[in-house]
Order: sequence, then structure tokens, then C-alpha cells
Amino acid sequence: MTRNELDNITQELRRGVLTLAVLCELRQEHYGYSLIKHLKDRGLEIDQGTLYPLLRRLEANGLLESEWRVDGSRPRRYYQISAEGESVLDALKPEWDKLVAVMKGILS
Amino acid sequence: MTRNELDNITQELRRGVLTLAVLCELRQEHYGYSLIKHLKDRGLEIDQGTLYPLLRRLEANGLLESEWRVDGSRPRRYYQISAEGESVLDALKPEWDKLVAVMKGILS
Repeated sequence: MTRNELDNITQELRRGVLTLAVLCELRQEHYGYSLIKHLKDRGLEIDQGTLYPLLRRLEANGLLESEWRVDGSRPRRYYQISAEGESVLDALKPEWDKLVAVMKGILS
Repeated sequence: MTRNELDNITQELRRGVLTLAVLCELRQEHYGYSLIKHLKDRGLEIDQGTLYPLLRRLEANGLLESEWRVDGSRPRRYYQISAEGESVLDALKPEWDKLVAVMKGILS
């Protein structure tokens, strides 16, 4: 029970920052798998079942752009942040910094 | 649209840390309204509709304890972290620190 609850809360924490991390990483173009790999290298694990719906939501809301391209043997959908996404990202960064500062106060 | 999406993402960020913040603040006993006020003073705004279900969930999972007490004119339910909650909190703190460090790398 405790183990589960700990996993749940850790998941909640991670889910919260994921959108911010994805927008940030997509200042450089990626296809799904390369983005997962890239985030993992940075220390943030995310599975396809979480990432793909998030990418679709962000694109539907105009924060990302995507295009299909054929690489070698198969088509891949490449994603990149849009101008609107950049402005959302610029507004989110100070929100994140504020939250980190608030939590620092609470946890100390 | 952008304004909405920005609010949504900011909400997601805040929701993620809320459980951690609540567990931490409940090392001291609070009733609902006093906890809301306390978190607000620290810089974290949370409404009753978010807090009460969270408190019930955490209590159902054994991370909090509560009791009704009559203060002056009316009964209030006081919440406090349980021993199990303390151990979850101890495990969550390094997760949070790790996440902050990961995001620092991603955002830079």
C-alpha cells in the first residue's frame, strides 16, 4: 500500500513537469522515440503511452508543429515547438522557478 | 487558447507538488481551512475542492490521521501525518530533489 502510494505520488510529481520538459526538449526537432531516449538520458523516464497523447494534445493546442518524413526505411513524425509554444515555455519557466522556491521553503 | 493551455500546464505543475507540500505541512496538525491558509502564506494556492479529496485519499491510504474536535462553536476535523506518511515523505524528498536537478539540466 505505502509502496503503491509512493509510486503514485512520484508519478504525479513527474507528470507535472513532463509538459515543461517536452516543450523544452522540442526546441530541437525529435520524433517520438528519439524524444523518449533523449529525456531518459536526461533522467526523466516516460513511456509511449504517456508521451504520444501529450504530443497530440500540445499540437492540437498549437504549441507544437509536426510533419511526417521518411527516414531510411520508414516514415516518422517529427515534432518541434511552435512560436506559440515558445511563448508558453517562456511563461512557464518562471512558474517553475517559483514553485521550486516555494517547495524549498515548505520542505526546509 | 494559449492562455488556457498555460493555465492548464501551470495547474499540472502545481498539482504534482501538492501532495508533497500537504504531507510536509501536516507534520503540524491543521484543520482544512488552516492548512489552506498556511499553504497560501507559503505561496501555494489550493482550493477546498482540491484539498479535501486529497486529504481523504491520503487518510484512506494511511498517510494521514484525523480526528474531530470541537473548537469554540463548531467541530473541526484535524489532520496530521501518520508514521507511514512520515516514511513516504522521507522517500519523496529525494525524488523531488532529483526532479528539480533533472529539470535544471533540461531547462538550461
